[in-house]
Amino acid sequence: MIEPPAKPVLLGLLGAPIRHSAAPRMHEAAGAHCGIRVHYQLIEVAEASAATLRMLLGSIRMIGFAGINVTFPYKEAVLPLLDSLDDTARAVGAVNTITIRDGRLYGHNTDTTGFEKALREEIARIGQGPVALIGAGGVGRAVGFALARLGIGEIRIVDRDTAKAESLARDLSASCHAHACADAESACDAAEGVVNATPVGMLPSTALPIPAKLLRQEQWVADVVYYPLVTPFLAAARAIGATTATGRAMTVHQAADAFQHFTGIKPPLAPIQEAFDAVIAARAG
Amino acid sequence: MIEPPAKPVLLGLLGAPIRHSAAPRMHEAAGAHCGIRVHYQLIEVAEASAATLRMLLGSIRMIGFAGINVTFPYKEAVLPLLDSLDDTARAVGAVNTITIRDGRLYGHNTDTTGFEKALREEIARIGQGPVALIGAGGVGRAVGFALARLGIGEIRIVDRDTAKAESLARDLSASCHAHACADAESACDAAEGVVNATPVGMLPSTALPIPAKLLRQEQWVADVVYYPLVTPFLAAARAIGATTATGRAMTVHQAADAFQHFTGIKPPLAPIQEAFDAVIAARAG
Repeated sequence: MIEPPAKPVLLGLLGAPIRHSAAPRMHEAAGAHCGIRVHYQLIEVAEASAATLRMLLGSIRMIGFAGINVTFPYKEAVLPLLDSLDDTARAVGAVNTITIRDGRLYGHNTDTTGFEKALREEIARIGQGPVALIGAGGVGRAVGFALARLGIGEIRIVDRDTAKAESLARDLSASCHAHACADAESACDAAEGVVNATPVGMLPSTALPIPAKLLRQEQWVADVVYYPLVTPFLAAARAIGATTATGRAMTVHQAADAFQHFTGIKPPLAPIQEAFDAVIAARAG
Repeated sequence: MIEPPAKPVLLGLLGAPIRHSAAPRMHEAAGAHCGIRVHYQLIEVAEASAATLRMLLGSIRMIGFAGINVTFPYKEAVLPLLDSLDDTARAVGAVNTITIRDGRLYGHNTDTTGFEKALREEIARIGQGPVALIGAGGVGRAVGFALARLGIGEIRIVDRDTAKAESLARDLSASCHAHACADAESACDAAEGVVNATPVGMLPSTALPIPAKLLRQEQWVADVVYYPLVTPFLAAARAIGATTATGRAMTVHQAADAFQHFTGIKPPLAPIQEAFDAVIAARAG
């Protein structure tokens, strides 16, 4: 049981580029709803060396941050600088949430728990059939472990970098049948679901991560990209009548889970969703 | 001309011990009045080495703080870590306010400007007669330079550490007649004003920095200590009918001046005073 904080809470996001991040608004909205004053600082540092990361994390501890989120390109680089990792972060090998308690740094991965919750929420029936996972980078790894936690029986991993796909398959093999696929065609063949975990389709990109013709009406199709909300990939899936899940729910849930790690309080989702929608609308407008 | 900040502003205070500081409330109140959301973080770090201070200031720059205040025991120690000092900070040899612009750290001393403004406000007639300055430490130096800026003709400096008193006298000698006094009796003799710039009288201390019998009705008597607001020293001065100035106005003005350095906006004093009074009332209660 963690005591809810009585004082204003200082949070932040470390990464680059992050100036369009919805995180400040989402966390400040969650705080406002929970009666906690939150300041969420964008810590945009490009090309930080290991020494710079060490300095920053040491200072973040001393300054009194309750915690920070970590994003591209530092989700793996911060690992050796933390005092402790939870099981998810250790398994994924990446951290997107660091909490600070009594001067110690704890690593979590709410990309994984967020995607897991989002998929449960967005897809009415998740079976145990094969799922095609496109992308085995940082987000792909987080999604892969979420799929395993969802009880998916077979995960087919596609990445241009075959070594990455094989490495993720190996790491997932303890909990499910996971294997690297040489091409998207074989990965999608008779798949129950398809997940894009690459940045393809994030504006200014308007490309599709895999050819639209590989999708089928009876599949569910999820995208981690959330700008635009309906990516060309999801638009193609909707056009043929497939069930789709946008990146919105994953983003909202990863923020909610991070907020709970930071403050000890489980926030309602509605204010976080509203904040997310406001940021996306402002960005589009 | 500095553009007023559109985004929330991150400020802080570096020092130890600082948990009773009124600074967060004062700066957040000033911000609320100026339409700026301010988070003011207490960065309580005890016994920081030069290397730790370097790390902290480097990180504070990267994290995106608009600036920080600095208090005991780091007002002198931060000097070599800054990119530039304003004239006041360079003369005093101490910094209580650091602003960060375009990745550069600028040092200011609003203890000096704050005491100068406070005395102008609190003491109706400031002449050019001698003033006794009790204490030649960090605050004493800031007060000494403020007295010189107020046009005081003679400053008599008393400190148990004679070397400190002599050093301050030397540094002030360019702008006024300043000299170290061996004892408070000779310093106060026919003095127009007396300033306590030592921590004596700050609770739990209830002592007087100099014997009450040295004070006279026609003098003005100022104290930098603000907790309690009326120190035993000021109570003794009031008892004999002397004009007094509490530490409140100095504290409020140093905060207002720092806020202006941080944001480019001159704040109204009333919300800062109210915030200060609320903190003192809460502490007393």
